[in-house]
Amino acid sequence: MTYSIAILGASGYTGAELIRLIAGHPHLAISALGANSKAGKTIAEVFPHLRHLELPALLQIDQIDFANIDLCFCALPHKTSQQVVAALPADLKIVDLSADFRLRDPDAYKKWYGNEHAAVDQQHEAVYGLTEFYREQIAPARLVAGTGCNAATGQFVLRPLVVAGIIDLDEIILDLKCAVSGAGRSLKENLLHAELSEGYHAYAVGGTHRHLGEFDQEFSALAGRPVQVQFTPHLIPANRGILATTYVKGDPDRIYETLCAAYADEPFIEVLPFGETPSTHHVRGSNYCHIGVSRDRLPGRAIITGALDNLTKGSSGQALQNANLMLGIEETEGLTMAPLFP
Amino acid sequence: MTYSIAILGASGYTGAELIRLIAGHPHLAISALGANSKAGKTIAEVFPHLRHLELPALLQIDQIDFANIDLCFCALPHKTSQQVVAALPADLKIVDLSADFRLRDPDAYKKWYGNEHAAVDQQHEAVYGLTEFYREQIAPARLVAGTGCNAATGQFVLRPLVVAGIIDLDEIILDLKCAVSGAGRSLKENLLHAELSEGYHAYAVGGTHRHLGEFDQEFSALAGRPVQVQFTPHLIPANRGILATTYVKGDPDRIYETLCAAYADEPFIEVLPFGETPSTHHVRGSNYCHIGVSRDRLPGRAIITGALDNLTKGSSGQALQNANLMLGIEETEGLTMAPLFP
Amino acid sequence: MTYSIAILGASGYTGAELIRLIAGHPHLAISALGANSKAGKTIAEVFPHLRHLELPALLQIDQIDFANIDLCFCALPHKTSQQVVAALPADLKIVDLSADFRLRDPDAYKKWYGNEHAAVDQQHEAVYGLTEFYREQIAPARLVAGTGCNAATGQFVLRPLVVAGIIDLDEIILDLKCAVSGAGRSLKENLLHAELSEGYHAYAVGGTHRHLGEFDQEFSALAGRPVQVQFTPHLIPANRGILATTYVKGDPDRIYETLCAAYADEPFIEVLPFGETPSTHHVRGSNYCHIGVSRDRLPGRAIITGALDNLTKGSSGQALQNANLMLGIEETEGLTMAPLFP
Amino acid sequence: MTYSIAILGASGYTGAELIRLIAGHPHLAISALGANSKAGKTIAEVFPHLRHLELPALLQIDQIDFANIDLCFCALPHKTSQQVVAALPADLKIVDLSADFRLRDPDAYKKWYGNEHAAVDQQHEAVYGLTEFYREQIAPARLVAGTGCNAATGQFVLRPLVVAGIIDLDEIILDLKCAVSGAGRSLKENLLHAELSEGYHAYAVGGTHRHLGEFDQEFSALAGRPVQVQFTPHLIPANRGILATTYVKGDPDRIYETLCAAYADEPFIEVLPFGETPSTHHVRGSNYCHIGVSRDRLPGRAIITGALDNLTKGSSGQALQNANLMLGIEETEGLTMAPLFP
Repeated sequence: MTYSIAILGASGYTGAELIRLIAGHPHLAISALGANSKAGKTIAEVFPHLRHLELPALLQIDQIDFANIDLCFCALPHKTSQQVVAALPADLKIVDLSADFRLRDPDAYKKWYGNEHAAVDQQHEAVYGLTEFYREQIAPARLVAGTGCNAATGQFVLRPLVVAGIIDLDEIILDLKCAVSGAGRSLKENLLHAELSEGYHAYAVGGTHRHLGEFDQEFSALAGRPVQVQFTPHLIPANRGILATTYVKGDPDRIYETLCAAYADEPFIEVLPFGETPSTHHVRGSNYCHIGVSRDRLPGRAIITGALDNLTKGSSGQALQNANLMLGIEETEGLTMAPLFP
Repeated sequence: MTYSIAILGASGYTGAELIRLIAGHPHLAISALGANSKAGKTIAEVFPHLRHLELPALLQIDQIDFANIDLCFCALPHKTSQQVVAALPADLKIVDLSADFRLRDPDAYKKWYGNEHAAVDQQHEAVYGLTEFYREQIAPARLVAGTGCNAATGQFVLRPLVVAGIIDLDEIILDLKCAVSGAGRSLKENLLHAELSEGYHAYAVGGTHRHLGEFDQEFSALAGRPVQVQFTPHLIPANRGILATTYVKGDPDRIYETLCAAYADEPFIEVLPFGETPSTHHVRGSNYCHIGVSRDRLPGRAIITGALDNLTKGSSGQALQNANLMLGIEETEGLTMAPLFP
Repeated sequence: MTYSIAILGASGYTGAELIRLIAGHPHLAISALGANSKAGKTIAEVFPHLRHLELPALLQIDQIDFANIDLCFCALPHKTSQQVVAALPADLKIVDLSADFRLRDPDAYKKWYGNEHAAVDQQHEAVYGLTEFYREQIAPARLVAGTGCNAATGQFVLRPLVVAGIIDLDEIILDLKCAVSGAGRSLKENLLHAELSEGYHAYAVGGTHRHLGEFDQEFSALAGRPVQVQFTPHLIPANRGILATTYVKGDPDRIYETLCAAYADEPFIEVLPFGETPSTHHVRGSNYCHIGVSRDRLPGRAIITGALDNLTKGSSGQALQNANLMLGIEETEGLTMAPLFP
Repeated sequence: MTYSIAILGASGYTGAELIRLIAGHPHLAISALGANSKAGKTIAEVFPHLRHLELPALLQIDQIDFANIDLCFCALPHKTSQQVVAALPADLKIVDLSADFRLRDPDAYKKWYGNEHAAVDQQHEAVYGLTEFYREQIAPARLVAGTGCNAATGQFVLRPLVVAGIIDLDEIILDLKCAVSGAGRSLKENLLHAELSEGYHAYAVGGTHRHLGEFDQEFSALAGRPVQVQFTPHLIPANRGILATTYVKGDPDRIYETLCAAYADEPFIEVLPFGETPSTHHVRGSNYCHIGVSRDRLPGRAIITGALDNLTKGSSGQALQNANLMLGIEETEGLTMAPLFP
């Protein structure tokens, strides 16, 4: 059985990553590629690394015939995506990778993104796409909202602990180190090689990063009361990777046991031996997430570190994992390639 | 049908790359991993990026039972490899990735490597492993010698032109830009991040690099007379990739047509549109080789650039391609993953 | 007036950085270079970037005549340094860059370094070399102990706040991002370009890093009671730089005012406008430290980020600043070069 | 004596490099900074690494009063620069860093840049700014045209050999490896970190790079007959540096002797011991150029490698060296800082 796939936003990094993954998937075939700004080009012109693949040329989104598409990935910029999704056929299965459908509450959406949502119906319909925790809802869903890559990393580290009630919910600090591809293929001065290479810095300090909206939504729902974490992202001179260093108050041993138990059967989450720490280099290009727990010298405090590839497990790999569920395919299909090291 | 595989030298980069590739191969299973200096360790200790795989622990080579092994990859240092290969069962299929069996002439071997060969019988038996040009001999071979990664790159660019007799054989310059993983996982000062990052330089200038032995052997055999190229490798601050910039005298149009014809049916060699140039970033982590031809402003001169991943197409990918042939498996099996970009 | 300088440990990175700085200093001249493992070599052989300088060849330390040396920098490995310093002339001015004389308490030294101190007299004599806070004691000192580079960064961010008593001393988290040159020119697998580039990770997690000994000593002394911070260093794929992201509880406005006041007259410490964050790229190769203060969305919490170059302000620049004081030279002499960007 | 300096184009990389260098110059003071697109901003907003300097805010160029300016650096884009220079006071000393005044022949200019020159008088007046070879003309000049950074590198390697008539002028190949800052602070997709890091490629292959105009002009003038070299630039994932690998036919020993003799008294050109090769990492941030000569295994052929920092010796350092001459200051003043390594 082969399913027919469309990718909208094929000229961005998450679009390219979807193509890379689907090219190795035995049950999916790419039937349409949309990329308004680069419509008319071949994929070889936009992404020379994919030139060996036989793929359709890029189209304007409104040129695409969705009649025979089984599932559509939307890898479009936020705000654009909600308009496009609202106009797609109402029965088309969609995995959206933008920020547009992550927040269920219209007020929360407006608070973090500044505008009224243009597709409120779809916003209500969308299922939050953190696969390991929303499998039951994702499988039958029509529209799944991919999570923020930072939000995914932080939740892998923290969700089981919030549920178990074994950490102080008012004392959670997430210090994230993010590679540059998370910012997309955008022409900004601070993303130039000469500006970024050999240097690193914090950004969106103090609680202004939009992925906080997801943390607030998810952790508060799990805890049954408002939870607000501290979260500082940093831009690191590397192309792929997110490393979350998480400071919590709680018993390190119970934390470790809780995480081990939570992820014992998960194919993509690896909890390292107690005291070891993951590296982004060891998950690069893969759908794996590595988690390490360490005891602090101060009693009752632990440091939990989590590493994943923002483009794969943090975005396009997660999206494919969800698509597999939605199409009734084995969840891990097309996603078990080993990381690229060195 | 599943074949049982052993990898000797599993703690080096080409060993890790073999494991990465074989982990995604439907007909191969790793039964034994040898790594004398790290025997007793698990693969997760040596290569944390492979921790999700179920693999045997590393063994001393003499602890390995080769009775049920269908094919053995030797990813050992040169000089070591010839001793190990000589001691392996005489009917064991072997793909050797070292430099030990690349040169057919014992005198040439001694000239470039400085010592008498310790396995002359195997040296005579070995087939040169440049798959695209030695398929007929590789398929039935027992022992195949993987090529040098630089030697592979230069030959992909030049062999069809030497055969066609359309370039001046006395005026060939190969200027190569090599990423650092080609030097292996060795503790040398010049391979430290602080020494290499942000800088680049030529090395083995003037004709001292050992891969020249392969160029001499192969090009002279093709031409039916001695051919000696100029070859300057450079160390570039990147982890994977070889870029060969080749300066030749000949008609650029004929050169382009000849390369297009030579590689028209090759699954892994892509000749770009005339005038375009490849980037190592666009083949990284893949078994593809991209080739570009440009016309110089000086009449009768052309520049040919070739890019591949030294660990994949230049080494372990080539080795697996050869193993597929030797085992009667589809040649491309396990090797068609797209490059990792960005 | 020109002072005669010796540098012991001239073949390491802090040694090279001292030479770079002193080469531009109008009142210092290098008379002797010691480097036991590379004795007999010229500086051009050990550090080709310094080949344009006229410098003495490297000597065994016991070959050096200290009779006419006005001041000696010891850039030796820790444990070695204490033995060498104990054997140097008793009236020789010394700036030590190792870890050996940073901790005043022999028990604390043993706790963090595992051995009895071999030069207890000098340990007692040594002045802690954080220039901005120990100027009065450094100027007349004979032996000054350079601080740890991580310890310097954390103290620049925190000392004025501890003194002012405006942050919760039991709730301080220092998340540090450190470039690779801080690990020195040592042949370790994890410092290879192929291992480090494109990846990053935490290390010494949970309170095992030795620079914690300095934090404990200094903050406790300032506070008049025991203070223990949480501190997690991370290795980042860059050659120079330390970025400290510091999470504290206290009023962000008072914190900002306190830091502005504390550093108003300091030539090398720049407090950025409120809410801005520094980048290591903007201090690279210089003796400047940039500090930024941001308000967290959670009331009563602030994030303070500090950036400096570990080899300059974190080590050799600090050492020269101290040497200037000890020799009666203007403190900033030879240290005001602008950072190298990009 | 202090001279008053203006810098036009202060928001680009060569502008920032000029500020860095002049900040350490004892006889120059920056009186005006022009940057049309960022007029009104402070230097700290445009280049945070220069925030410690007391500098005037950026102005529109037409807001600048040139009455008291002793010398003006124009670090503007080409085509813009010729218009600005034509409108500056006729007696103002100018060092131009753009491409606009490098080619003396209006036809050559039009051939390489595609447009008629808008300041032909100044074009005729301008002196070519390769300091080591045009000192006599530069010192009394009013307008000096900085060379291309690639053109400078190639000429340092080749000029003495062309003059001496000891290499085959029809067989010169320049293979250049260029760091990314040479492309300026421009928002282009191929200059993004995610596109460039970890990969490298050739560009402007086959004789289309505009610096060829300079090679043709200079080498032909030296030889007294037309000389055309082959020249292939490559973009390397590093921020600073140019490495020229030059293939020539001639006697390696005579070549070496000729280069040693030519540069024996030059303060910034270092010819390495025969057979050694320079690295860009060893000249980074400095005004030094390192040159190495190696013998090829093919008789009568040599490889000459030259390394410099494109922003310093290749551009702003050269410009300051010329300004020193024009103002009657010691030529090396402000330029002898050692390279930054690592």
